[in-house]
Amino acid sequence: METRSVFFVSDGTGITAETFGNAILQQFDITFKTHCHPFVDTVDKAYQVAAQINRTFEIEKISPIVFTTLVDENILQVLKENSQGFFLDMVNTFVTPLEQKLGMKSSRKIGRFSDITKSPQYHHRIEAIDYTLVHDDGQTNTNLSQADVILVGISRTGKTPTSLYLAMQHSLKVANYPLVPEDFAKCTLPSVLIPLQKKLFGLTIDPQRLCEIRNERFANTHYASIKNCCYEIEQAESMMRLANIHYLSTTHKSIEEIATTILQTLNLKGSDQ
Amino acid sequence: METRSVFFVSDGTGITAETFGNAILQQFDITFKTHCHPFVDTVDKAYQVAAQINRTFEIEKISPIVFTTLVDENILQVLKENSQGFFLDMVNTFVTPLEQKLGMKSSRKIGRFSDITKSPQYHHRIEAIDYTLVHDDGQTNTNLSQADVILVGISRTGKTPTSLYLAMQHSLKVANYPLVPEDFAKCTLPSVLIPLQKKLFGLTIDPQRLCEIRNERFANTHYASIKNCCYEIEQAESMMRLANIHYLSTTHKSIEEIATTILQTLNLKGSDQ
Repeated sequence: METRSVFFVSDGTGITAETFGNAILQQFDITFKTHCHPFVDTVDKAYQVAAQINRTFEIEKISPIVFTTLVDENILQVLKENSQGFFLDMVNTFVTPLEQKLGMKSSRKIGRFSDITKSPQYHHRIEAIDYTLVHDDGQTNTNLSQADVILVGISRTGKTPTSLYLAMQHSLKVANYPLVPEDFAKCTLPSVLIPLQKKLFGLTIDPQRLCEIRNERFANTHYASIKNCCYEIEQAESMMRLANIHYLSTTHKSIEEIATTILQTLNLKGSDQ
Repeated sequence: METRSVFFVSDGTGITAETFGNAILQQFDITFKTHCHPFVDTVDKAYQVAAQINRTFEIEKISPIVFTTLVDENILQVLKENSQGFFLDMVNTFVTPLEQKLGMKSSRKIGRFSDITKSPQYHHRIEAIDYTLVHDDGQTNTNLSQADVILVGISRTGKTPTSLYLAMQHSLKVANYPLVPEDFAKCTLPSVLIPLQKKLFGLTIDPQRLCEIRNERFANTHYASIKNCCYEIEQAESMMRLANIHYLSTTHKSIEEIATTILQTLNLKGSDQ
């Protein structure tokens, strides 16, 4: 299969641009070799990156694809004029038509968020991560009512990664609470959760998939057996239906898809970063 | 200040597009009111979103800005032809020139990753998150040599959020290890870390900022006092210099900036999702 070199050049971390650029590239049946150049915030650094693009061009005899998120026009110009890249400008492509539509110039500021750590949003995000860690896996019931969401489900349905993702990306305080055989015996949700019903969201999974996941670490145990997996899932789903809480199957869903579905269903919108 | 409505319409979660779109919008001194419409993967849903855009237009008497990441051209067309939005097409804007440059058509597939949970990359990511949680705050030394990075630093320098971010976003196995007064007394890094020197990265912080952070939860304690903060930072930095490990100050840096700097410095490149 053909391989093409791709550069991501940003004046910040470039993480979002890189993730977004990779999503674009994945529409093509080519293997891409990516090179990331974050923090390119001076003309000097632009010359250095230009030199690397040119070295790649000389070796491969074909223009590397260059995704840029450079706000400073001088830096972008130096890079463009001194290298053999095929440029896709992720900032100006949208900023220019928006400037026209909004009838105003954009700020063109690099590092608009250089003081991000002092912003209330950032503080809120760190608090959400702290809260979520402390409230992982039913570790504590303290301040449970402060949670924005409480995930429930049997072991290995994806509660922990989803909780951390919601905290990290959406600044939500998330608790997660395991459903265990003792709850099934009582046929009811853990009593501490009952007054918080509106915040609850359940995760479930296909028995076969659960059995595979549990066998990775606990092969040939009762816990990982298909019989027990079927039993736990059936009990948990019946309990969630009875308690009238929303739930979804995580079997074929990424963390991002689970998180987005939860936000949509509970009509929650975390703070944007 | 002026306010404009913005719609993000995606056939997937739209998370990346939304984050990237917000970064573009932040270049303008306007308050934007954003509406997210994930999972718009049928023509029917496109008509529903078009109706919502039109309702907003009728109320505000000005075209809402619509960022789209719709791969299916029919769905995009229905949305465009039936609504009063000002469209910024985040897929075709880059896919079209890339198709020309690469001399091939893109796959235009929605949900290319519908089976993502079965991919080795996804499995690796979940493993990294599990590893990182278990190895948070020096909880265990088991399998410490399997870590891709080991963060060290005194309490409240940002080790935990940075570790989780590196695991979540870059699928790296990250351990983090607190430096405590007992280590300072011995004037050496915890002995278990010494053979793993190449994986170590230190986090430090300004004393004043540390004092503020610690006082939020432990006001008027020795732990949070400026004198103790100064002492711990001085000891930790001197230990990190002596051990010849890279370190950075997290005082003015976001989690993303810290993570990117670590990747650059240790020349690590996590798996892309």
